[in-house]
Order: sequence, then structure tokens, then C-alpha cells
Amino acid sequence: MDRAVLLIQCPDQKGIVAKVSNYVFRSDGNIVNSDQYSTDPEGGRFFMRVEFSFDERARSRESLEADFAPLADELGATWEMHYASRVMRMGILVSKYDHCLFELLYRHRSGDLPVHIPFVISNHPDAKELVERYDIPFHHVPVEKHRKEDAERQILDLVIPGTDFVVLARYMQILTPVFIDGYPRDVINIHHSFLPSFKGANPYQQAYDRGVKLIGATAHYVTLELDEGPIIAQAVERVSHRDNVDDLKRKGKNLEKTALVSAIHAHIEHRVIRYQNKTIVFEG
Amino acid sequence: MDRAVLLIQCPDQKGIVAKVSNYVFRSDGNIVNSDQYSTDPEGGRFFMRVEFSFDERARSRESLEADFAPLADELGATWEMHYASRVMRMGILVSKYDHCLFELLYRHRSGDLPVHIPFVISNHPDAKELVERYDIPFHHVPVEKHRKEDAERQILDLVIPGTDFVVLARYMQILTPVFIDGYPRDVINIHHSFLPSFKGANPYQQAYDRGVKLIGATAHYVTLELDEGPIIAQAVERVSHRDNVDDLKRKGKNLEKTALVSAIHAHIEHRVIRYQNKTIVFEG
Amino acid sequence: MDRAVLLIQCPDQKGIVAKVSNYVFRSDGNIVNSDQYSTDPEGGRFFMRVEFSFDERARSRESLEADFAPLADELGATWEMHYASRVMRMGILVSKYDHCLFELLYRHRSGDLPVHIPFVISNHPDAKELVERYDIPFHHVPVEKHRKEDAERQILDLVIPGTDFVVLARYMQILTPVFIDGYPRDVINIHHSFLPSFKGANPYQQAYDRGVKLIGATAHYVTLELDEGPIIAQAVERVSHRDNVDDLKRKGKNLEKTALVSAIHAHIEHRVIRYQNKTIVFEG
Amino acid sequence: MDRAVLLIQCPDQKGIVAKVSNYVFRSDGNIVNSDQYSTDPEGGRFFMRVEFSFDERARSRESLEADFAPLADELGATWEMHYASRVMRMGILVSKYDHCLFELLYRHRSGDLPVHIPFVISNHPDAKELVERYDIPFHHVPVEKHRKEDAERQILDLVIPGTDFVVLARYMQILTPVFIDGYPRDVINIHHSFLPSFKGANPYQQAYDRGVKLIGATAHYVTLELDEGPIIAQAVERVSHRDNVDDLKRKGKNLEKTALVSAIHAHIEHRVIRYQNKTIVFEG
Repeated sequence: MDRAVLLIQCPDQKGIVAKVSNYVFRSDGNIVNSDQYSTDPEGGRFFMRVEFSFDERARSRESLEADFAPLADELGATWEMHYASRVMRMGILVSKYDHCLFELLYRHRSGDLPVHIPFVISNHPDAKELVERYDIPFHHVPVEKHRKEDAERQILDLVIPGTDFVVLARYMQILTPVFIDGYPRDVINIHHSFLPSFKGANPYQQAYDRGVKLIGATAHYVTLELDEGPIIAQAVERVSHRDNVDDLKRKGKNLEKTALVSAIHAHIEHRVIRYQNKTIVFEG
Repeated sequence: MDRAVLLIQCPDQKGIVAKVSNYVFRSDGNIVNSDQYSTDPEGGRFFMRVEFSFDERARSRESLEADFAPLADELGATWEMHYASRVMRMGILVSKYDHCLFELLYRHRSGDLPVHIPFVISNHPDAKELVERYDIPFHHVPVEKHRKEDAERQILDLVIPGTDFVVLARYMQILTPVFIDGYPRDVINIHHSFLPSFKGANPYQQAYDRGVKLIGATAHYVTLELDEGPIIAQAVERVSHRDNVDDLKRKGKNLEKTALVSAIHAHIEHRVIRYQNKTIVFEG
Repeated sequence: MDRAVLLIQCPDQKGIVAKVSNYVFRSDGNIVNSDQYSTDPEGGRFFMRVEFSFDERARSRESLEADFAPLADELGATWEMHYASRVMRMGILVSKYDHCLFELLYRHRSGDLPVHIPFVISNHPDAKELVERYDIPFHHVPVEKHRKEDAERQILDLVIPGTDFVVLARYMQILTPVFIDGYPRDVINIHHSFLPSFKGANPYQQAYDRGVKLIGATAHYVTLELDEGPIIAQAVERVSHRDNVDDLKRKGKNLEKTALVSAIHAHIEHRVIRYQNKTIVFEG
Repeated sequence: MDRAVLLIQCPDQKGIVAKVSNYVFRSDGNIVNSDQYSTDPEGGRFFMRVEFSFDERARSRESLEADFAPLADELGATWEMHYASRVMRMGILVSKYDHCLFELLYRHRSGDLPVHIPFVISNHPDAKELVERYDIPFHHVPVEKHRKEDAERQILDLVIPGTDFVVLARYMQILTPVFIDGYPRDVINIHHSFLPSFKGANPYQQAYDRGVKLIGATAHYVTLELDEGPIIAQAVERVSHRDNVDDLKRKGKNLEKTALVSAIHAHIEHRVIRYQNKTIVFEG
């Protein structure tokens, strides 16, 4: 038995759930989870996630998808079909701070992060030895001044064929449109603040200067507008006047790991639908 | 337009979601929310909550329910149908601690707790004036030593005809089978500890003696076994060695209010299904 | 026995704790709590809070303070002395949203907020009846267009003689320098967002539009710069795509109450020292 | 400059803080942090932690301690003096679950856990390779049936000379009095439940069976009574009916890491005083 996840968005209208679950029933699938949300039951936008098991020897993916297409047309729906048997390939970009990287590598090794990691790319050589200890290829792609696009094109040559999505695990280079427009799939970034507070550089210094009593971290999809992409997950922790900037950084590292891992889990379980500049994140 | 909430539990089997959503579609209903859970997709117990709007001028409740009955039989399902237009009647029992009582009265008045409160019953007269300020009838039913059952029978005479469920908002009398077996609907209790820790009396003293670093509160359905009923909601808060028993009580009051209100919201929105000694609480 | 709380700030230097605790010892006081913080042990700013019991029949407040003055001079310290026996007078300003107001009134009545509330002032008459049920005087001071300063002068006539500090419990008028410069003591505001995110009007709408996954509330001292005063307490709660603006407002109300009550507790227990645009909040 | 941490407990009495801070002042020390707590200002037990910097070229540790001894006698105090310059040696015992082990190794490597780890001991060989990748010696000490004490004696031969404290990072063997009485220093255990709930084996199964809505983890000092030692830190997380036992285990792993790291930080910063069966944990 394989499992399919069907993600749909369309104008809200009567009978969608019935039609979609009938489709699953006709396909000899068994619904394991079904969740939906409407911005407004009277004429809003409708979002649905249906997870169903099916016998992959009896039904090919192609036929499943071909059977759904007419219904999608009828509903005016945008949709994706994913399969649990297809492990997603997650490329990692990192700079010098390696706490998020190692959280991902450790969880990957221990089975908590069921993805394939084809490689780790960094603009610094520092993490090479440690990445290779996990038997994962490491690519050093330095970014030279005024030649960032060259580096991005090298990275694109790796990630376009090799990944299903890319994680910026504290990659400290601002991506240009060369990369963002050039990579056709999702890029997840971890920002070290509780967005929209403290955008830009040195958010822990900013938080310290403002004297906040809670700090946060935000995982979001990358868009052309820096720190403005759709938020997937956020985490916060209490701080006090006793925490200097270094303490905030140290506490923040945990938040970054927590928010990033939470976002990646949602993404690889196909629980996220993007709409306008926001996310629908169905419960796991 | 009215809204119906259909709660179902039955053995898991293929096609339930399709059949139920077809039923809604055939009834000219529009599914607003649908959530389900199975203890095990291969032969477990299946739980479903479907919320749908329907035109109450075109469809009577009776016909809606009559139409569902054959499908329920086919699925082997236990089910309930509730209606948003029918405001639930919530009876409150209280003793001397009135923080939960006043949380409920204040939220009720401010529209955050859409129930009807037919009366408040207490074994002490203390709260009378304040309850009546909220224009809610107050009944003083003292509990005399060795005659608790008499008091319970008086209470039953009020709550059986007058309520859809009862909340023990720090009612400090242990209910006997006379009440528990005599009242045919749900009773929600707030226990002032993080159950199953610190059952019984003086949980804050127990927590203090054990030196815990977090305290909690638990809202649960009442069963014949004291403090062992199905848990609906729990809340916790950090404490330290500096908190003496009085501090724990003070902090605990907030937790009690939080957990109790959360449980009541879940209950009146028909998001809770009881199964064995546990609850399925669908997200609000 | 009375209790004194001594708050000190001065340049960090060797021996401060010894000198201050010697002073308490010489005054026949018994230190109950002592807490201090230095921005930098080598030449930073030093902050100290010492709480000590003393026999008010043997030592007058005047002599206690007179004895401390020479030491304060020696240390170059700014300082305040407070007394537990002196209950603080808390004026409340409110507009239409009354959830914070009633949290304060209820806690006051139940003994959780040991202050004196001389009156509640509002620019709307709505809360009059309920405030008076708590036997607290209510003053309706309407704010007419282009004549806000007139209203502020009326309020000043009440709060200058009658209060030790003022709480803006969702008072929706932006205060002008007339009030802020005219009132010589502290004003605490509750802002309905996780500052510095979503300053200004309609923060819940802003939060909804940005698609954040956590919302917050911030209690801060009022300064001439709107929403920029020193933060005392913050609270956050998880939200999801399912929460519309009204849900955010409802959840936010709880956060506002939590953060505001926490800030008031810190303030009336004299645990807050202001420095630059930040607060030192010693643990309770 | 070195830093000393002085931990004191004694009967509460007037002038302790003054006397201790005078001692520091006389020793040419500069108090960096000072915290105290009394179970009851009128005749309770008093606890104090004073952290002060001193010039280790001018004052030897021996003279510092010799100078304090008479004051300790005068106060009737039990006390310890620790030095920041002396890095604590932390022995780790582990079985098969390695998530806590790796959290400790990673944090150690990244500088977040300033201890010396002389070795890791396990009753299983599984972790050997990974421990050695961190350049830390690994000892496999198998536990044979009915011969647990032999294994414990082998472990004692390693930890008595080589460690200042021992961490049980999910060591699944119940220690006998041979070890507990034989090791003269502190042992910290991580228990995978929110103690005192769910003592003993399979706490996640117990939590699942009870249907709790929050799960936890507890770090505590080990005593002869299993799961009854003084609690140092606890962590909790929200769960729902959707979480099966495996989900609880997975979520619990994070809680275990969080609570354990928090407890170790408190311990190595000498912020914990044990008293009766509880802990005083001063804020970090």
C-alpha cells in the first residue's frame, strides 16, 4: 500500500468534500486524513488536504492523477498529488552558524526527518568535515564580492536537478532574483527573529536594544521581498534584562531549530498550501 | 441558514467520508468543517465531526436525522446531531472559591461563552449577591453531614429539567452515584492539578511538597471514579522554589480558568467525542 | 513590622552590595529579598532591589531615608524607597473594550491585586453601571474632536491628586504631551500586539494580513513616542490560518489581560527599574 | 580574574547578607550576582548564592575558603565554594536511545555546554562510533543478568576518579545502592515523564492510556528511591488524541533534551542547592 496526499485549492462551492471523497472511493482508496478550510463558507477560497492509502499494484500514479483531472477542472481547482513512497530530496545551504545544520543532520540520521539529503552547500568550508562524517556530500561554493550571481548559478546547477526543495539553514547571503526566479520549487528560510519584528540584519541586537521580554524565530518561504515571504512556523521564548546579546543568540538558536524543523515537517508531509502571501498549515 | 454538527463513531471501513459527505450533499447542506480520526486505518475505531450549513426552512431537523439513520446503521455508527441555533443550557455548581465561577459569568456576559446559564447552585450562600448582579438565579443547596444524597436529589430536580450539561466550577463536594448515575448528561469538572499527578485533596500542597517546577490544572468529564474521568483540556505554568503553597494556589487559579474555559468551548462546539476513558477533541 | 523596598541604580563599583546590606543591618532591618544586576561588572550600570522588614515603631520612614541618603551620595545613586504598608492608588482609564477593566476589578475584589482604585475614567459612559457595582466611582470624561487637551486636563485634575500611577486598560485615545508631561508619575499601557510588531491601529488586522503563527500583547510604560515606551511584560499565543480577525481579537483579549496584570504586579511590588528606554524587572 | 560561587544554607537570621557581602568586600572580591531565598523570614531556612570575581594572583582559593570558615561557623552554615576556572568533568551513561547523548555532545562541541566530558559509558556498544567521532573515549560496560553490581563497580572505577558529576542520558538500568551509595557526588537523571505522573517503565504508554493533553519530561537528582529524587527542571508539550505512542515518544525526546540541558546548565553554574527532597534553583 502506498499513500497519496492530494492538495486542492479552488473557489468555495457546495459539494466539494463529497465529490473529492467520492473520487477517492471510486479509486479504491481509503481516506486516512482529510482536512479542509474555507476563508468564507459563502463565496470564499476553499483549501483541502486528503490523505488516502491505495494499492499501488492495482492503481498507477498516472491513472490516479488522470482520473482526478476532470474533477479538478469542474471545481476550478489548482492541485498537487504527492506520494509517501517518494522521499523528498532536501538541499541544504548554510554559512558559518551550524546549529540548524546539525539539528537537521542529527534528526535525519535518527529517522526523525524522513528526507533524502543529496548534499550540503556552503559559502564557507568550515562545515565540510562534519557534514562528511554523516556521509553526505559537501560543496563549497564561495561567494565573491560583486559576483554573487556566479555563485548562485553554480548552486542552481546542483539544486535544480538534485532537490525537491531547498532549506536555508542560516545561509547568510541574501538571494538575488537569479536564484529565486531560477529555482522552480520551494525555498524555506529560517529568520532569527519573530517576524515581522526585527527584519534585516542583527535581529538579536535589535531585540536587545528594544528591551523585549520574548524573542522568537520564524521559518518562512523565500520570496523576492526579503523577510516578507509566507510564514510557516514561529517559536518564542521568554527573556529578561539579564540576557545580553550573546544570551539572546544562544536562546535564539534553539528557537531557530524548533521553528525550522516544524516548518520542514509540515512541508514534507504536504500539509502546507500557499495562498496569496500566507500559508494554510494543516495540523499534523 | 442553520448549522448542524454531526458526530459519529464506528468501526473504520472504506468510504465513510464519501458516504457521509454524500449524505450532506444530498441534504443540500454545505460542509463548513469536517474532521476525522482513526485509531488505526487498518481496522481501528473511526471518529468524525462534520459541520454543515443547511436551510432550516427547507429541511427540518427531523428529516435530516431520519435521512441519516439508515447510513448510521450501515456503518454501525453511534452518532449525535447538534444545531448551532440551539443554545446549550449550562448549569454551574460552585462552593466557596469563585474565580472559575466569575470567569464563566464574565465571559458569558461579554459574549465569549455562548450558552444559556439557567442558574448557579452552591452549597454556600457566599456567591449569591454576585451571581444575582449578573441577573442569574442562585440556588443555595447546603450539604448536611451524612445527608449528601438529599442535597444531590435537590440538585437533580433542578439540573435534569433545566440543563444540557453541568460544570463543577470548583464544587468541593465529591459527587455520589446518586448524582452521577442520576444525571443523564455530561458533567465537566475542573481539577486543580495536572492529573494524574496529585489526585485527591490539597493538590497544591502535594505539588509544593514534591518540589515540582511546573503546576497544572485539568478539566475532565466526571465519572464514578474520582479524578479518573476522560481529560478534555490541561494547562500548565512554570513555578519555582520561591512559590509557597499560597503562590501555587494563586497561579493555579489562572490555570483552572484557562483549562475549564477551553474544555467548555470544546464541549459546546460539539468538538468532543468520548471513547473508552479518553476524549477525541477536534481542533476549534 | 513593615517592609521597605529600596530601589537603586548607580555606576557599578566594588562593595555596593556590602554597603547597602550593612546599611540595612545598621537600621535593624532584616533582608527578605535582595536582587541586583549589572550591565557589565567592569564599569557598567548597577541596579539593585532590596526588600527588608523593619520595626516601624522603632524606626520612622524619615529616619530610614535620611540614613540612606549619604550612602546614595557616596555611590552616585538614584534611588526610591517604598513601603508595603502604603497601598498604591491605581487610576484606570478605559474606552469601550472592557475585558482588561473587568479583569482588574475582579482581581482587585478577590484580593489578587492589592491596590486602591480611587476611580475609573472613561471617554464613554458604557462601563458606568458595572464599575459602580464594584463600588468604585466612575467618571465619564468625553473627548470632543479637536478638544482632546481639555479632556486631558480634566483627567489630570483627577489623577494628579488621586493616584500613584495610571493604567490605560484599552484607553483608545492617543495621549498628548499635555497629559504625558503633565502627569508626573508612571502610566502603564496595554498594547494589543507583540511590539515592536504591528504598532499603531488595528494590530490584529495587521497580524491577520501578515499570516503570523503567534500573536501577542505588550504592557509598557507610556512615553511621548507612541508604542515605543519601555516594555514591562509580553505574552504570546499560537494561532493558525483558521483564526480570522475576530478570533485573533478574542484570543488577544486573554493575552492583554495576562500581560497587563503581570506588568501591574511587577510595578506595585516595586520590581521594575527604568533605565534608558528599557526596564529591569526583578523576578517576583 | 577568576570567579567564585559561594553556596550557603543555614538557619535564617538577621544580617546574613551583610556579613557575607562584607566577607566578599574584605576579600577584595566584586559581587557579580547575589541571590537568596528563605523558606520563612521568621525562623526558616536560608539559602544564598554569591558569585564574585577576585584576582586569583592576589588571593589563593585556600585563603578565600579559610577566611570564610569562621563566618560559616558563626552562621551555622553548610557551604560550598566553586570556581569558574575549574571546568567540571561530566561523565555520561547511556543505553540505546541516543538523542540526549547527541544533544550533549553537539552542545559540548559548539561551546554551549562548558564541561569536560572524560568519557561516555554504555551497556550497549551501539553509540561507540558516534561518540568517538567527537573524540571522546567510549567504554562499553555490559550489564549481565543478576550481575548488575559487577557492572556498577566497573563504572565506579571510572567515574569516581574521573568525574565531578554523572548524567544518566537515558541509561535504562535502575541503579542499585552499590552505585548510588558508592558514588559520592551528584547524579542527574532524565525521566521521560512529567513526574510524579507516570513513574516507572513505559511512561509514554501510560500517558497514552490515560489520554493526557500534555506530556512532559523531568530532570532530577538520583536518590535511592526510584523517580523520587529532587526535581531540577521540567518541560511539557501539548499533545492530542492524534498522537499515538510513537508520536509521544518522538515529541518526548525534545522535552527530554530540553529538561536535561536546562538541569545540567543549572548544575554546572552552581545554581542548585539541595534541601530535604527539593531543590532551590536560582535563576541563571
